[in-house]
Amino acid sequence: MAGYVREDISDDEIERQRLLYGPLTDAVRDLVDATIRTEVDDDEVRAVQAEVEALTARLRARQLDGAYGVRFSSGGRGRPWGNPVVGLRNAAAPPVVVEHDASGRAWATFHLGAAFEGPPGLVHGGVSAMILDQMLGEAAGAGGKPGMTGTLTLRYRRGTPLGDLRAEAWIERSEGIKTWAHGRLLDAEGVTVEAEGLFILPRWARERLEAESPKYFE
Amino acid sequence: MAGYVREDISDDEIERQRLLYGPLTDAVRDLVDATIRTEVDDDEVRAVQAEVEALTARLRARQLDGAYGVRFSSGGRGRPWGNPVVGLRNAAAPPVVVEHDASGRAWATFHLGAAFEGPPGLVHGGVSAMILDQMLGEAAGAGGKPGMTGTLTLRYRRGTPLGDLRAEAWIERSEGIKTWAHGRLLDAEGVTVEAEGLFILPRWARERLEAESPKYFE
Repeated sequence: MAGYVREDISDDEIERQRLLYGPLTDAVRDLVDATIRTEVDDDEVRAVQAEVEALTARLRARQLDGAYGVRFSSGGRGRPWGNPVVGLRNAAAPPVVVEHDASGRAWATFHLGAAFEGPPGLVHGGVSAMILDQMLGEAAGAGGKPGMTGTLTLRYRRGTPLGDLRAEAWIERSEGIKTWAHGRLLDAEGVTVEAEGLFILPRWARERLEAESPKYFE
Repeated sequence: MAGYVREDISDDEIERQRLLYGPLTDAVRDLVDATIRTEVDDDEVRAVQAEVEALTARLRARQLDGAYGVRFSSGGRGRPWGNPVVGLRNAAAPPVVVEHDASGRAWATFHLGAAFEGPPGLVHGGVSAMILDQMLGEAAGAGGKPGMTGTLTLRYRRGTPLGDLRAEAWIERSEGIKTWAHGRLLDAEGVTVEAEGLFILPRWARERLEAESPKYFE
């Protein structure tokens, strides 16, 4: 696995990679949507499949051995680009682009389409849980209290329609390595799902982060 | 939205579609993984991006107006093929292929790779939540008590490594339209995440399902 990798690359280089990989990922995300919704002839489906396989082989000509991990530049900026909620290189991510402030608040607006459907026309309950887990973790991290999910509780107030949505999260309180965060998912009419979670930074992660990327804690 | 659509198609036709769309979806899923992990030259990344865009346009030449919905054949068999956990046509799904029995048990073995990573080398906590939400819902449905998630609580016992995993769920008890289900995610060493959830069949869904696909309740 890639692990927490510290790379000595500049902000300019990160921006260059963002401009290179972002559009590729957007293109693949669009293909995921089209794969669910297409009604073209069988021969055309098979022809496209063969070409997709050829493109995958081209991308795999040189690739990471395992998953992406979380990469840190020398400035301490983290890039969880494989992340299934926010990852710049993950075409399965909505993606959610999260904004934060240092008080431990995080918020985002995003669009969920066909790839996130559970009941007809509605967001899959598990997708709401996944996004809220990420948002609560982002709030904890933004407030200087990063951690892994310890417990997570979701209350579904009503169905969340596919389309344009908003998520918000904030730190409720913290004690040592434990942080309690709350959050919610909203459509244009108001709250659809509420979440609360406990985030804990386990010892192994604390030690590894301190050794590999001390600025993560600044 | 597609809604709960009843289609008068045979089991043979469903099998034909499965053999057509399954391999396309597998190919696109593999491309999602390669998109995260590729290290080929910039020019090659851009060239592949252009070809992906062309393939998407070909698939979109004829397509569903919106999301896939849940389609039922005349035999009452449901096909949630756009579902982000189990959907045959969703390249963002692992996919999890769930087995059930009529007592309300559901289980599955599956593999999670680079597209499901949260902390380095570990499954994203939100992905575990998403899969367990689906599994608990599958157990409720298998036991004749389908519903939408009302509440869901997850307890993360330790990090879940990327790789081969198992999930299990069962009905704990039920009362009218409410069903309580429990479940867990496991790696080779044992339980990593525990879940419990309340599933409720809302009136609108009950009425729509009864009108459109009465066999759903048999």
